[in-house]
Amino acid sequence: MENRNRVDESHLIHASQLDLPPRLLLGPGPSNVPPRVLQALAMNEIGHLDPKFIELMNEIQELLRYVWQTDNRFTIPVSGTGSASMEATLANSVEPGDVVLIGVNGYFGERLCDMASRYGADVRRIEKPWGEVFAPEEIGDALKAHRPAILGLVHGETSTGAMQPMEGIGKLCREFGTLLLLDTVTSLGGAPVFLDRWHVDIAYSGSQKCLSCPPGIAPFTMGERALEKLNERKTKVASWYLDMSMVGKYWGKERTYHHTAPINMNYGLREALRIVAEEGLEERWERHKSNANLLYEGLEELGIGCHVPKEHRLPSLTTALVPDGVDSKAVSGYLLRKFNIEIAAGLGQLAGKVWRIGLMGYNSRPENVNLLLSALKQALETVG
Amino acid sequence: MENRNRVDESHLIHASQLDLPPRLLLGPGPSNVPPRVLQALAMNEIGHLDPKFIELMNEIQELLRYVWQTDNRFTIPVSGTGSASMEATLANSVEPGDVVLIGVNGYFGERLCDMASRYGADVRRIEKPWGEVFAPEEIGDALKAHRPAILGLVHGETSTGAMQPMEGIGKLCREFGTLLLLDTVTSLGGAPVFLDRWHVDIAYSGSQKCLSCPPGIAPFTMGERALEKLNERKTKVASWYLDMSMVGKYWGKERTYHHTAPINMNYGLREALRIVAEEGLEERWERHKSNANLLYEGLEELGIGCHVPKEHRLPSLTTALVPDGVDSKAVSGYLLRKFNIEIAAGLGQLAGKVWRIGLMGYNSRPENVNLLLSALKQALETVG
Repeated sequence: MENRNRVDESHLIHASQLDLPPRLLLGPGPSNVPPRVLQALAMNEIGHLDPKFIELMNEIQELLRYVWQTDNRFTIPVSGTGSASMEATLANSVEPGDVVLIGVNGYFGERLCDMASRYGADVRRIEKPWGEVFAPEEIGDALKAHRPAILGLVHGETSTGAMQPMEGIGKLCREFGTLLLLDTVTSLGGAPVFLDRWHVDIAYSGSQKCLSCPPGIAPFTMGERALEKLNERKTKVASWYLDMSMVGKYWGKERTYHHTAPINMNYGLREALRIVAEEGLEERWERHKSNANLLYEGLEELGIGCHVPKEHRLPSLTTALVPDGVDSKAVSGYLLRKFNIEIAAGLGQLAGKVWRIGLMGYNSRPENVNLLLSALKQALETVG
Repeated sequence: MENRNRVDESHLIHASQLDLPPRLLLGPGPSNVPPRVLQALAMNEIGHLDPKFIELMNEIQELLRYVWQTDNRFTIPVSGTGSASMEATLANSVEPGDVVLIGVNGYFGERLCDMASRYGADVRRIEKPWGEVFAPEEIGDALKAHRPAILGLVHGETSTGAMQPMEGIGKLCREFGTLLLLDTVTSLGGAPVFLDRWHVDIAYSGSQKCLSCPPGIAPFTMGERALEKLNERKTKVASWYLDMSMVGKYWGKERTYHHTAPINMNYGLREALRIVAEEGLEERWERHKSNANLLYEGLEELGIGCHVPKEHRLPSLTTALVPDGVDSKAVSGYLLRKFNIEIAAGLGQLAGKVWRIGLMGYNSRPENVNLLLSALKQALETVG
């Protein structure tokens, strides 16, 4: 009996004090965050029903409406990473049997298909090679052919560096009675996003890209048409954790306990959003664009092209073409080991063909572009 | 056209610098966390596939095995709060039509029923009044009657302050070919938990109770029998985010990207687990027990009883009976306003009848017990 109560120490390791390399994260995210956000993360815990926390929740919601350019009352941070918020959009809008049309021109379109099918959707696809975007007429034709309950598009495809033009698509969706669902993970805070003007009904984003807050909390919003569909559901949302009919009662007037909010991540997100508000959205978009242009020019000088045509490039994420004969992994490995700079490899159709270079939020600065370009030059000369 | 590109500033608020009250959180969680954990949270971002981050992931996994007293290879932190990990246990183990037997003697047993039914389970209940626990014979009889695929029990019921004795239950489950699923949210790190000796197949916990890390990351573990059931599923796990057949490839040898891990929350959890390891599990359990005893004695001196019989009390969470004629909310409101001390009200069957007082992890200290008792005395004299 005594033996049964003795603690087994076979997994008791003596981990050393946390000591991290000073990485400059110029990949597809996470990205570095401003010191003010890190300081906010480290503030004293308060309760998730504390009057002060509720004040802070209201501020986060209002600032999310600002960055998304939406009046949606139902605008909240999901208690998980961007992928959780992505899933929340489908979990709440899809009922088994719904036809869901997805624009697939990269990894995240593929993932939307997988997620939607798990919630019982009849998934239809409209496809383009990775790096291309959809024309409004193509979307219109597909809406006409499939008459979907929901159209899912990716505004900024982190896997390809392409940005989907949104003019006219929302109106088409309204004509066909289709809800428009939009991924704004890599665009929000880094490129123009006008949810309401675009007639987007439901959207998600991440914290760790152009908003410059660590991963672990993720913006989510739904408009009245999406809420109506949620309220009229015949089946419960399969995910309890992401069920917005309950989560909304915590973030709404009722303040009913659902799950414990990630307190410190909310501190961090609030601070990150304050910084966006202080800079101003237009200035922030302009900064992303201008630093992206610096990058394009510098890459060109190194003889490196971009995968995406200039008019459709996402300013926060560039897919730079790996020159013929260059070992892409040797170069990115060299950057990490020698200069503490992280860039990422291509995924899927672009595996081995591109590097993915992020200039996101706090990291979108001319000095980072210069540093990367000079390091890349050296890497190409040394291991390329 | 120009107008369409102009930013709408109607939601642009000027939020002030984050300024939080110095709360002492003696409710059911979140609880205050040690300065070392807050410092770890605030460290510089590194990538989720960085060699250094992978080292840190391995350390977290090993230390979780230690605190849970398990050899389970599949032991990881879920990228969400305790409720996400709770859902993950059911999402991965339940297939539509499975009979799932839940012990319901508090709020979290009820929630297990709700979650299991959303994943298509045929839910059966074994019930007790809130605050009581199940005897092994009662569990044995129910297993015999229902022959469930899974038995879900709550080890430490945060809503009632009762701790379920676990001796003999795991063996019964093995006899009936039933997987044993255990909630250890409020017990892990605060009271003896021996997952492997108890033959627990799948378990979850939270970070923000006796482990003293902020909410936003949550321990999850499954043994070989549970993994076998996962591997033999005929249907995909409905939640993409919580699908352990994919998440496991990120935390396992493959290191395949699934979703971006909440980097800083992992820093915090690692530091919290280091602190548990430095103190030692037995010493930590003993500290929780001894401070709980101080609380029981002090409450008795104030004429306040406990809802749960002493032998079944959870040392980390005490349900103190509100004396006749006392307005429970007036007292807790006074504690918060006057002394910055948070305690919580009762839920469900115990609404208005008890206060829930937590002495968890870092907050389980004699000075906190003394402070609470003197504040409670004053509150009872003033607004009681």
